[in-house]
Amino acid sequence: MLEDLIARIPEFDEGSATAARKRQDRLTKPTGSLGRLEELSVQIAGIKGEALPSVEPPAVFVFAADHGVARNQAVSAYPVEVTAQMVYNFAREGAVITVLSRQIGARVVVIDVGVASDLPAELPVQHFKVRPGTGDWTCEPAMSKQEAVDAIEAGARCVFAEAERGVGIACIGEMGIGNTTTAAALAAAYLGLAPKDLVGRGTGVDDQGLERKIEAVRAGLACHADTLQSGDPLVILAALGGLEIAAMTGAMLASASIRAPILVDGFISSVAALVAVRLAPAAGPFLIASHRSVEKGHRLVLERLCLTPLLDLGMRLGEASGAALAIPIVRAALAVLKETATFEEAGVSDKEALP
Amino acid sequence: MLEDLIARIPEFDEGSATAARKRQDRLTKPTGSLGRLEELSVQIAGIKGEALPSVEPPAVFVFAADHGVARNQAVSAYPVEVTAQMVYNFAREGAVITVLSRQIGARVVVIDVGVASDLPAELPVQHFKVRPGTGDWTCEPAMSKQEAVDAIEAGARCVFAEAERGVGIACIGEMGIGNTTTAAALAAAYLGLAPKDLVGRGTGVDDQGLERKIEAVRAGLACHADTLQSGDPLVILAALGGLEIAAMTGAMLASASIRAPILVDGFISSVAALVAVRLAPAAGPFLIASHRSVEKGHRLVLERLCLTPLLDLGMRLGEASGAALAIPIVRAALAVLKETATFEEAGVSDKEALP
Repeated sequence: MLEDLIARIPEFDEGSATAARKRQDRLTKPTGSLGRLEELSVQIAGIKGEALPSVEPPAVFVFAADHGVARNQAVSAYPVEVTAQMVYNFAREGAVITVLSRQIGARVVVIDVGVASDLPAELPVQHFKVRPGTGDWTCEPAMSKQEAVDAIEAGARCVFAEAERGVGIACIGEMGIGNTTTAAALAAAYLGLAPKDLVGRGTGVDDQGLERKIEAVRAGLACHADTLQSGDPLVILAALGGLEIAAMTGAMLASASIRAPILVDGFISSVAALVAVRLAPAAGPFLIASHRSVEKGHRLVLERLCLTPLLDLGMRLGEASGAALAIPIVRAALAVLKETATFEEAGVSDKEALP
Repeated sequence: MLEDLIARIPEFDEGSATAARKRQDRLTKPTGSLGRLEELSVQIAGIKGEALPSVEPPAVFVFAADHGVARNQAVSAYPVEVTAQMVYNFAREGAVITVLSRQIGARVVVIDVGVASDLPAELPVQHFKVRPGTGDWTCEPAMSKQEAVDAIEAGARCVFAEAERGVGIACIGEMGIGNTTTAAALAAAYLGLAPKDLVGRGTGVDDQGLERKIEAVRAGLACHADTLQSGDPLVILAALGGLEIAAMTGAMLASASIRAPILVDGFISSVAALVAVRLAPAAGPFLIASHRSVEKGHRLVLERLCLTPLLDLGMRLGEASGAALAIPIVRAALAVLKETATFEEAGVSDKEALP
């Protein structure tokens, strides 16, 4: 099914993008004066294959999983139990992402793809647990290749299931204590960058914690050196990955396949986007970077993805919070494209009217 | 009345700001992980004097006026008639700011404080014309000191009138062909900076146009050199100002006096904020910079105001478009403060839970 998923990603529609660009240039404002808003509307036109696109209704996906590296290597400022506790907080709508989603009128889908503890079946979350947390990739594979595929497919299935209620745009985020370390390890392996350039303070570790994180990534890269040499994106993902990162990758591929713009969240979500474009380069034009996190590696990963973030507000929460915050910007861009009067309609003199 | 207006500005309420800060630190997220959103909520708590503030309903003010310098010195890419034409476009709700305001559920108040042509009384705009455009400040005063005071008071009266319907936060923007040149002249005079560092391409002038703008500002500073030496903010405003800039200044002072956060728009709006804090330093804590425009001088003016913009999207439209775009960010910041569960409420382990 992964091959099918990749094969189903359509081409970016240059015709619709061009039509949107032409309309932008006729609206009653100086040419280009809305900057990124204009570019955003043009990109979404190309993604959707519609000259006047809509992203309604938006959907927010939060994938949760645990990390062996957090259990063993003390790489987080918070205990591993917090992953499950936050899933309960999402379910009770007490978390930041549930507040932000309510604010923008988006539904939140929380998915357990690998929380270490058993979650009650009646908890209002999607139960797609592939395994209860990854192995500690500093000394063993995070998961098998089949488990990586299973997690990717779980993420894709969530998006396809939601598509029945409509997914106009997909905000893709995560919760997983320890996952900035996992994301740094993956980014180092995919991009050939030094661990110290990709490891940041995550939820707020001190200097010793930061050093432990860098050491963990170095150990992981050394432990899996032979495996990583293959360069196979799926093999790398299995060796060092997180279950939620694999699922986010699948959700992104599925979003692209249904022409839903992918609103990438922070560092971890961007690493999932990196995996997605390694598996399926055709997914690239469907990506929109919502914000730049203060997490150290995010800038580098965004650069490698050739993505310029919409927001830069010093955030580092995850949970798709940056993506949700960018939804009103996206809506504004599309409303301007659709509803602003043209020079002709409004009887306003264009530049050419100058003597 | 201007003295009264200034005297009525209350103090920033440190107690409410501290209460908001303390609550932020107890919410279920790593401390500080929402960056600017947290700071924004704390600032608004201090502005409003409430620990859990609301900015509902927002109001958008667009002040329109013409500039003698545009009529005489060819400093804009658009003919001067466009100011009036755009006022009609606002009235018919075809302009970008009317689209963006509809999107956020904010009402737009358009005010004629100095459009060169007569506007029909029945046009749904506020008629506060002080004079039909300024004098050409390259060779004569833009307006008299009394006219500057009248324009300031007109702006204040608009805000006080709207306050009866509620002004939870004030987006303050403008429309006026030629007004980036006027704003650059004012900024140069107030800040003692070189014209070439403050003059940008505005609506999109070519290299010759840019040179004409710089020359115009130099001529204006030379023409009024004696007057400007007084350092009196009101005298400088009268010599080089725009009627809409004076009115925006008044609207900002009025907003501060009713504890409504002032959402500053782009370059021109920021210059009005500069005038406001020169007249009334107490207005400073009430200012929020919505975005950084690509207009050259904006960065410098924001720096001098010690304001960090929320958005940086390559925009340069004016009309309060950047301020309107920032409203959902403000709402999100306040919703998070109010609605997110605390660690205790959610039963989530805080950092202290670590061994």
